[in-house]
Amino acid sequence: MSTVTGFETLDVRFDTSAMLDGSDAMNPDPDYSAAYLRVTTDAADGLEGHSFVFTIGRGNDVQVAAIEAVAHRVLGRDVEAILADLGGFWREFVYDSQLRWLGPEKGVMHMAIGAVVNAFWDLKAKRAGLPLWQLLARLTPEELVDLVDFRYLSDALTRDDALEILRAALPGRAEREATLLALGYPGYTTTPGWLGYSDEKLARLAREAVDDGFEQIKLKVGDNLDDDIRRLGIARETVGPGIRIAIDANQRWDRDQAIEWIKALERFDLAWIEEPTSPDDILAHAAIARAVAPVKVATGEHAMSRVLFKQLLQAEATAIVQIDSTRVAGVNENLAILLLAAKFGVPVCPHAGGVGLCEAVQHFSMFDFVAVSGSQEGRMIEYTKHLHEHFVSPVELVRGRYRAPLAPGIGMEMLPESLAAHQFAEPTLAEKR
Amino acid sequence: MSTVTGFETLDVRFDTSAMLDGSDAMNPDPDYSAAYLRVTTDAADGLEGHSFVFTIGRGNDVQVAAIEAVAHRVLGRDVEAILADLGGFWREFVYDSQLRWLGPEKGVMHMAIGAVVNAFWDLKAKRAGLPLWQLLARLTPEELVDLVDFRYLSDALTRDDALEILRAALPGRAEREATLLALGYPGYTTTPGWLGYSDEKLARLAREAVDDGFEQIKLKVGDNLDDDIRRLGIARETVGPGIRIAIDANQRWDRDQAIEWIKALERFDLAWIEEPTSPDDILAHAAIARAVAPVKVATGEHAMSRVLFKQLLQAEATAIVQIDSTRVAGVNENLAILLLAAKFGVPVCPHAGGVGLCEAVQHFSMFDFVAVSGSQEGRMIEYTKHLHEHFVSPVELVRGRYRAPLAPGIGMEMLPESLAAHQFAEPTLAEKR
Repeated sequence: MSTVTGFETLDVRFDTSAMLDGSDAMNPDPDYSAAYLRVTTDAADGLEGHSFVFTIGRGNDVQVAAIEAVAHRVLGRDVEAILADLGGFWREFVYDSQLRWLGPEKGVMHMAIGAVVNAFWDLKAKRAGLPLWQLLARLTPEELVDLVDFRYLSDALTRDDALEILRAALPGRAEREATLLALGYPGYTTTPGWLGYSDEKLARLAREAVDDGFEQIKLKVGDNLDDDIRRLGIARETVGPGIRIAIDANQRWDRDQAIEWIKALERFDLAWIEEPTSPDDILAHAAIARAVAPVKVATGEHAMSRVLFKQLLQAEATAIVQIDSTRVAGVNENLAILLLAAKFGVPVCPHAGGVGLCEAVQHFSMFDFVAVSGSQEGRMIEYTKHLHEHFVSPVELVRGRYRAPLAPGIGMEMLPESLAAHQFAEPTLAEKR
Repeated sequence: MSTVTGFETLDVRFDTSAMLDGSDAMNPDPDYSAAYLRVTTDAADGLEGHSFVFTIGRGNDVQVAAIEAVAHRVLGRDVEAILADLGGFWREFVYDSQLRWLGPEKGVMHMAIGAVVNAFWDLKAKRAGLPLWQLLARLTPEELVDLVDFRYLSDALTRDDALEILRAALPGRAEREATLLALGYPGYTTTPGWLGYSDEKLARLAREAVDDGFEQIKLKVGDNLDDDIRRLGIARETVGPGIRIAIDANQRWDRDQAIEWIKALERFDLAWIEEPTSPDDILAHAAIARAVAPVKVATGEHAMSRVLFKQLLQAEATAIVQIDSTRVAGVNENLAILLLAAKFGVPVCPHAGGVGLCEAVQHFSMFDFVAVSGSQEGRMIEYTKHLHEHFVSPVELVRGRYRAPLAPGIGMEMLPESLAAHQFAEPTLAEKR
């Protein structure tokens, strides 16, 4: 038996705004950051649980404070008991009545709970000697549904529905795992498309993306329609008709403006339009989706909870489910969302990029392929080039496809030297002004 | 010209869980708390801006940390410039791209922005020598709409729509202000209805409520149907047929369970059913509202933003708009919500209670009566008995009606001795376990 003996939180920030990497219509100058958590135990194996919440700079300190408040509550607890019932562990925090007031189930406190839950998933996967996707894909349907809380979901997905989905995927698990290990999982790249890049850089990076084997690229839009038309023209001419181009407005528009703007761009043969308006606006997404069809609407990177995803699916407001690895309350909640997507027959194409999001989120798509949807059709994982070098097990892409990771854990562990080098030093009050 | 010279944050908690005051089906043991902010300037008037975010205990420290992160950014700034454009001030924080990632527009970070915005509203009202409701009710329609951000609202409420509503209410302002000063504004009481109270205490407090002049009481429900039926029977028998009884499930049910449960209680002639399910579930609220009509569905105390309220109204998911004074980003966002409610013709019945929520939220109902909806019909402010003694200007009720407050400010300032006496001392790690 072992005990949780300590934890450390770190405010880790990268100066990405200086490069305009990651610039879009709502986020002109992101500093990719991680509110980082490391959990230690007294077990002889010396294994640690590592996780983080991704942010884009200011406020990362607040996210750290929230993680600390939650992590304090696991000190001294029995590790094996936690790892044996991660479904119960999730419920303990998400339904803690006092913490719940601060959301409920959204924002800083929800993501903090996710970080703590994920640190224990990391520990569980490391103890099993398996990457998260493989750990999950070896659980029985019954074990998987025990990890999911069906409160507020039962009008769309019951425990029995989930069991049925998972049982239907049982027969092909071994074959799909072999396929995944041999061929990987499709990615698409957002690297060419940041709004701050020049036309020349856009064209060069789009060409490189095709040369690298990607079959889809994504461009940021929404700041200026003329610019969008020009940039999409350059991109389409560069990549040719066989490569898909998605666009991403990062919540820039109101409902009617979104419809008008998308219609002005549809001639470029769009794979999807991502985040056309407020991520919380289910009804507007649904109205946009109806109006711009056959262009598909995609959303989810800011979708705060399984309850929001449920409604987006019920309202046919999104045709692509873009889960994020640190936006919701950890692995358990993303399992719920994968099951919801499968129930509605909607493909999952995770949000990634930032720092470490590719490393983390690939596990969900791979698990989904092996044990939930059983399909890679219309599914791919976002990819950007930045900051992979800071991770213990960085993603590997071959000809535009993610290779299945084999390192034990959930993929969020950063190198000690990177953690040390990028610790955020609090600016003086004068600098803050 | 004056400058913001300092701020102080305080973690203030009251041991209410010991009394089971405030206990409901989801919140068995709330410790009413305030993440408190005090802003100081170098102006000769010595006036301070006071505000807080209400929480129910654990996590109040995280809320304090978030307020601190935002408040740091106003140090050294020109007070008059801020007070002259509180609409711009709101947008500066709510659309700060990096802070925005932590929501967007929801949860801990959004409420923290609300606290900072509200502290400056407090200062503005004190400088004007007016209570908030009167300060707002003396602004022109043009000044009021400048305070509101219409992003993500334009499919339901435009600036022109808002101007039209406010201009239509101009003629009667003076008369309604006189009515309000003479007769106050209706309240209703939740004091009898907490789930932790015995049947005897329920009956005694219900009788007292009627004796005190209240025309509506509210009971918590949702834990056990037999208990609910028994308690509603006692309440109805005690108050008679002329007093309205509302019930509140505090998010306890899934959609179909809610419908079934409410139908089992409808014979008690219910004023409304509050928070039947997840506060984020617009579609479920709409389905419940359709199924249980003519019983009205009410929600809003946990509604995170104007975007959620907009959708609740568009989907006819709520028949009562229950704004809360510290859940959204301050006075400006509650103005937006009052205007949305007026546009849809739905009455606003604010959530209050906790600590200081009655003192704060009454201003919105009174401003709404004078300058927005122009009506008290079907409208009332929640009231509970607790903790008013800690405020500089506690609410006054006469025969179940709130008297219009006359003290300058937004009503959130606590007495210095109460702040000192209820500062939360961080427990040791051993206690935290």
